[in-house]
Amino acid sequence: MRQDPDCIFCRIVAGQVPCTELLSDDVALSFLDIAPLAQGHALLIPKEHYQTIDQMPPELAAAVLKHLPALAAAVQKATGCEGFNILQNNARVAHQFVPHVHFHLIPRSAGDEFHFNWPAGMYPAGRMERLAQAIRKNLP
Amino acid sequence: MRQDPDCIFCRIVAGQVPCTELLSDDVALSFLDIAPLAQGHALLIPKEHYQTIDQMPPELAAAVLKHLPALAAAVQKATGCEGFNILQNNARVAHQFVPHVHFHLIPRSAGDEFHFNWPAGMYPAGRMERLAQAIRKNLP
Repeated sequence: MRQDPDCIFCRIVAGQVPCTELLSDDVALSFLDIAPLAQGHALLIPKEHYQTIDQMPPELAAAVLKHLPALAAAVQKATGCEGFNILQNNARVAHQFVPHVHFHLIPRSAGDEFHFNWPAGMYPAGRMERLAQAIRKNLP
Repeated sequence: MRQDPDCIFCRIVAGQVPCTELLSDDVALSFLDIAPLAQGHALLIPKEHYQTIDQMPPELAAAVLKHLPALAAAVQKATGCEGFNILQNNARVAHQFVPHVHFHLIPRSAGDEFHFNWPAGMYPAGRMERLAQAIRKNLP
């Protein structure tokens, strides 16, 4: 299993750094974020070290992310939150600070402190289909 | 398969509303968001109608989300973006506007227009472990 001795999440997986664990199996670990955006802010990570999700094998992504529904339901029940965001950041420009894939589960309630904008744009005519062709060409 | 005739994403799945498709299989569909936060902003959805991810069977979440790595790699190659966010919103308080589970893949580059804050807090002593116990009690 790929591990990076300098990675804080790899050190948590190895038991060298403590965490407040929520669930664990052969490939996945979930624990509470120690600097939460809201009470119950949880992280779900692969135990193996991958910096960004595009690098992960699809079967590993499946085996880790199958935990999202039950984890989200349990966090909702325990916190009484009204909703939640799942957020996963890739690269510093996207606000990734620990270079080990992690999915944030962020409980949300009216008037809370986490905010994002939604600067929706439009495509010029023809651009959307050309872009889709370029993306499809790079899919397996 | 659960479908909601009033749901725009169910209508896309049924072929009643067009989309700019990126990938499709028995259970998952990906297409370009028509109101993109950045060029190449993609959506990945289950074909079956679930309002929020906590309602999805874990096997379906796995079968849909296994596409994230390849989709992210292809969007990066096609757009040349420097990073990307995966974002999935549950309930209006979390900015969900279409009540059918959808994962946003949002390409990011320096100086772009999508922003979120990160109001990280702290737990008072003992609170974190009590909260984790309450969450674990609600897990399967």
